[in-house]
Amino acid sequence: MTKTGPRRLKQIDQTQSASAVREACRAELCTGPTSGLAAGFTQANLVILPSDWAEEFHEFCRLNPKPCPLLDVLPAGDPHPRKWADNADIRTDLPAYRVWKHGELVSEVTNIVDLWQDDFVSFLIGCSFTFESALLADGLPVRHIELGTNVPMYRTNQPCTPAGRFQGNLVVSMRPFQPADAIRAVEITSQFPQVHGSPVHIGLPEMIGIHDLHQPDFGDPVPVHADELPVFWACGVTPQAVLMESRPPLVITHSPGCMFVTDRRNCDLRSA
Amino acid sequence: MTKTGPRRLKQIDQTQSASAVREACRAELCTGPTSGLAAGFTQANLVILPSDWAEEFHEFCRLNPKPCPLLDVLPAGDPHPRKWADNADIRTDLPAYRVWKHGELVSEVTNIVDLWQDDFVSFLIGCSFTFESALLADGLPVRHIELGTNVPMYRTNQPCTPAGRFQGNLVVSMRPFQPADAIRAVEITSQFPQVHGSPVHIGLPEMIGIHDLHQPDFGDPVPVHADELPVFWACGVTPQAVLMESRPPLVITHSPGCMFVTDRRNCDLRSA
Repeated sequence: MTKTGPRRLKQIDQTQSASAVREACRAELCTGPTSGLAAGFTQANLVILPSDWAEEFHEFCRLNPKPCPLLDVLPAGDPHPRKWADNADIRTDLPAYRVWKHGELVSEVTNIVDLWQDDFVSFLIGCSFTFESALLADGLPVRHIELGTNVPMYRTNQPCTPAGRFQGNLVVSMRPFQPADAIRAVEITSQFPQVHGSPVHIGLPEMIGIHDLHQPDFGDPVPVHADELPVFWACGVTPQAVLMESRPPLVITHSPGCMFVTDRRNCDLRSA
Repeated sequence: MTKTGPRRLKQIDQTQSASAVREACRAELCTGPTSGLAAGFTQANLVILPSDWAEEFHEFCRLNPKPCPLLDVLPAGDPHPRKWADNADIRTDLPAYRVWKHGELVSEVTNIVDLWQDDFVSFLIGCSFTFESALLADGLPVRHIELGTNVPMYRTNQPCTPAGRFQGNLVVSMRPFQPADAIRAVEITSQFPQVHGSPVHIGLPEMIGIHDLHQPDFGDPVPVHADELPVFWACGVTPQAVLMESRPPLVITHSPGCMFVTDRRNCDLRSA
């Protein structure tokens, strides 16, 4: 991180191409959150693990596709997600990275060139930005975006399907909607299985172990009005929480909100 | 209707073909409800109007596709729905018909051969049997089917879009589901736009003018457990209620539950 703190591309740059955003990251001109950048292009979460932990994590994602929707897994040592972007390098093309050792955050960096190992396996995981853009495009109001805050997220009492050393409970994000809009939100997000897909719960949060909507475990609270139902989606924080709990010797992830911006359009992730 | 009351085909006949059911209707061997007959084949509601009322009703259906999902409209005087069944005649091939004059039920008959007019326009309208079979096929419990009762239906305070002399409020059917199943039910029924499609409401019945779930306006009440949400679909009773209210001089409909059994399979109505 530069001494001046994370640099976010200016408002005027939001319409620029995905490759321009990646170049700005590579040049360390963009070191902050990517939400709203390269509008319409899919952004992805990144998890990098040494190969002796990668197989089990891959299996965990396969078994838990709603919280861990895999967009791609790169072969060991390969930093080039060719299916998702031309000439991209995941070691340099994200704004910021977090390095975790034995479950503890040890550093935050703007590239991982010097940390790269030949046995690193990179996982690209779908992100809710994609389905939120589809909700907005359909005219549905997304409360935390309206308020300019982070989405509220909650630990649930719902166990993920374990895989090897990886296990833990599902984390969910919540967006409140009036009932007819909630139905529409289910219809829309069900068309995006690669980015968490349809919600996992609606309306009765206590059933999944959430006792106070005003106290999210991550992110910011948002009001839920009397004519609204809280709608819950499986959240990409789930794999991070599971990773931190299982304490692999080394994990590298994107920094919160600082995603990998791909050349693929959100609309291409809509299923037939 | 025969003196012995409506005759329902026996259990053993449920797997017979749609054409065999229509033949049994034509021979007046089947004069009762068709639910469960010719399993897997689409059944349709029937509305017949003289042509001077038909255009407005057609427009009403076009404007209100969720309660009035049109499968077909036959030209004036044509009783043969060729797109839906070989060699079928809607004047004889339903178990029973109701004849309405100026909004009043005047007779119930097993065929309408003698009542037929050259200016009769026949409307085939999708029926929830199709999406219920898809819900059951997915393993979702449908309460009123488990209980062997009629689905509970409610008048709402939600006006349909009026067309000419036709106007009135939406009638909805209700099926209770646990939240995760409710989401699945939305996903499944959204794939069947020709049979009411996705729900119109979930969870907060007072918002649509329903104040007591235990007192449906039509059908039978079903229990809604504490861990369930009531889910509401637009109901085919809506066009009937609207028709009765606008009091055309003559309308012929199927008798309740006594549908037109087509040669098209329910799965073919699933959208891509």
